[in-house]
Amino acid sequence: MNKALEGVRILDFSHLLQGPFATQLLGDMGADVIKIERAGAGDMFRGMTFFAKWVGGSESPNFLAWNRNKRSIALNLKSRKVHAIIMEMARTADVVVQNFRPGVLAKLGYGYEDFKAVNPRIIYCSGSGYGEEGPYVERPGQDMLIQGLAGLIANTGRGDQAPVPAGAGLADQIGAMNMVYGILSALYYREKTGKGQKIEVNLLAGLLAHLNQEYVAVLNLGEDFVRPNSGIGHPGMQAPFGIYETKDGGYVSIAMSPFKTLYEVLAAPQLAVYDDLKTLFDKRDEVFEKVNAETKKFATQDLLARLLKADIWCAEVKDIRRAAEDPQVTHMGMITSYDHPRGGKVRVVAPAVKMSETPATIERPAPLVGQHGREILAEFGFSRDEIAALEASGDMTVDAA
Amino acid sequence: MNKALEGVRILDFSHLLQGPFATQLLGDMGADVIKIERAGAGDMFRGMTFFAKWVGGSESPNFLAWNRNKRSIALNLKSRKVHAIIMEMARTADVVVQNFRPGVLAKLGYGYEDFKAVNPRIIYCSGSGYGEEGPYVERPGQDMLIQGLAGLIANTGRGDQAPVPAGAGLADQIGAMNMVYGILSALYYREKTGKGQKIEVNLLAGLLAHLNQEYVAVLNLGEDFVRPNSGIGHPGMQAPFGIYETKDGGYVSIAMSPFKTLYEVLAAPQLAVYDDLKTLFDKRDEVFEKVNAETKKFATQDLLARLLKADIWCAEVKDIRRAAEDPQVTHMGMITSYDHPRGGKVRVVAPAVKMSETPATIERPAPLVGQHGREILAEFGFSRDEIAALEASGDMTVDAA
Repeated sequence: MNKALEGVRILDFSHLLQGPFATQLLGDMGADVIKIERAGAGDMFRGMTFFAKWVGGSESPNFLAWNRNKRSIALNLKSRKVHAIIMEMARTADVVVQNFRPGVLAKLGYGYEDFKAVNPRIIYCSGSGYGEEGPYVERPGQDMLIQGLAGLIANTGRGDQAPVPAGAGLADQIGAMNMVYGILSALYYREKTGKGQKIEVNLLAGLLAHLNQEYVAVLNLGEDFVRPNSGIGHPGMQAPFGIYETKDGGYVSIAMSPFKTLYEVLAAPQLAVYDDLKTLFDKRDEVFEKVNAETKKFATQDLLARLLKADIWCAEVKDIRRAAEDPQVTHMGMITSYDHPRGGKVRVVAPAVKMSETPATIERPAPLVGQHGREILAEFGFSRDEIAALEASGDMTVDAA
Repeated sequence: MNKALEGVRILDFSHLLQGPFATQLLGDMGADVIKIERAGAGDMFRGMTFFAKWVGGSESPNFLAWNRNKRSIALNLKSRKVHAIIMEMARTADVVVQNFRPGVLAKLGYGYEDFKAVNPRIIYCSGSGYGEEGPYVERPGQDMLIQGLAGLIANTGRGDQAPVPAGAGLADQIGAMNMVYGILSALYYREKTGKGQKIEVNLLAGLLAHLNQEYVAVLNLGEDFVRPNSGIGHPGMQAPFGIYETKDGGYVSIAMSPFKTLYEVLAAPQLAVYDDLKTLFDKRDEVFEKVNAETKKFATQDLLARLLKADIWCAEVKDIRRAAEDPQVTHMGMITSYDHPRGGKVRVVAPAVKMSETPATIERPAPLVGQHGREILAEFGFSRDEIAALEASGDMTVDAA
């Protein structure tokens, strides 16, 4: 075995972000991910993009980001013939992943009980916005909505203005990591006991768990977070914790650090009057403005060099393009690429976790819709005639570039 | 087995957030987590809090949030006697977790090679800010700094003002999930092959991987994200995607939705002139202001009811206290509590992932410093005299409440 999850076979009904990122993480570790898409159009994320532009003129950056290391088969899930085929595949599969709205897939005959009946060892993982029952079960479970419901948005931005979401998807990705956590825990359990099980993951619960320290503070200390009217970076933190401007229009983040060291490095001894914890919290907006007036006297790189030399916890604030060129990011090889039949050389973020014996690698680009349908069915023992008949009926589509 | 990870024994040298959240997730699934703290003071996070208040007058909400389901032993890691004891424990341990700055623990004789020598099946997982080598290896790896380096901060906030961090830790928690992903993948591999390995996780790489779709877009489409000067919630998105005010001072998030449906529900047909994708992107700040003027005419609950009825993707923006009382959060039982000897009844966020056969549960509150030292050493076969001698020398401390 060269990969940690070699031999683990996943039937992946998932679409958009949460499920696909989860199965990509499992694929990076060597699992055999069979992505089951809608015949014809495939995963809805194929039609989503930023800037109204497409990679190579046709491919979605969102889809390309979350679907490497998978093979695709495109099927009509409403066909009874297709149902029989998938249940045949399920006999030797280890994991099923899906993130349709609650109940949708089960109605088509692809619920946990359906799979368990043909393979009691199966691990079935469902993802949703808010879980599979309860008052919000019919509501849309989108990433920014979850950020708002979980309290992250109310904690972010300036106090004298409306709160803002984190400017990137996060709840979906955290949901994906929770799927991985549940599936791999269940796989370990199955190795020991032979038993499969059902796993339910939802975005709201997942984000709450990430905010546990904020919840424990608010629910046990009798205080609420109040956003500061400045660049202080967390409503629970005292100055200087925040984002500061520099002379050349850049920004530097300064985290928890001895305040005395900071004002000495800034050559601003007049700030000494603020140097106790209570004052740094109560007057944090005022302190922020004073510190910011000092940081603006330095060029970004000069300021960083001085602060780092004094072991102040700080870093540059970079945009994504500059982050991709960051020396540490480059050193780690975190920006890599794969060749895609239509997208060309696609630059992507590399696997993040380093394993000494079983390194994660990118073996395949994101697939075309149904690109591997024929080879997958052949592997499962279906004949050429059966496969051709399935295509002829429209129950399977193949885009082979 | 009632728990997925029953029988998995973890020697946990980690502190602060990344490592402790990772081992808490493993403990929630039944792993036996032995938290090895500094004799006397213990985990640095015990001295960290929000609002300069302490739970029960003495306990850190941050520490309480990330250390349930663990037992603590407090040892002097510089003592050779302690080294021999830990290596004895390592013979039957499965996993070692640590997140000291790179090299620190290895210098004390607790590197991967040291553990491998006594137990080749060991899985050793290190967490750091930036990996274990490269230009940033000596730099502090704090959560907000990572948000800035990875590009998340530059994407967040208003374009006409300084960017802002997400107002909660995220990079650390994502690092924790990556530890879980690596460790559980390695455990599966070990079940199949008998081989242990070393895993390296770092916060910067982990956050980059979560931002993959933003990286793929910027690096392949020749565009950069530009923060809008309004409440639009992602720099890559068109209106209406954003956070809107209501009549009673509340906020509602509105995600990707048919614009026509939105202006019809708002009874604002004059907005029809903006209804094509390019206009909604190019004039998104203007559209935002116009939509915001309409949403301010409705009370929060009335607006939500109308929008949800029309299947507009929306949700209320809640602060943490109100989120804890949210009907769906309550329905899911996501706010629970445990009894702590000094903190009293501590309210915490429950495990997020639901497992049908092996439910995650909270079996223990966060421990006191070294609370279980004696029982742990007795389990590993050390005699009462040996344990007493270790305490007498100060190499082990016990706070037994």
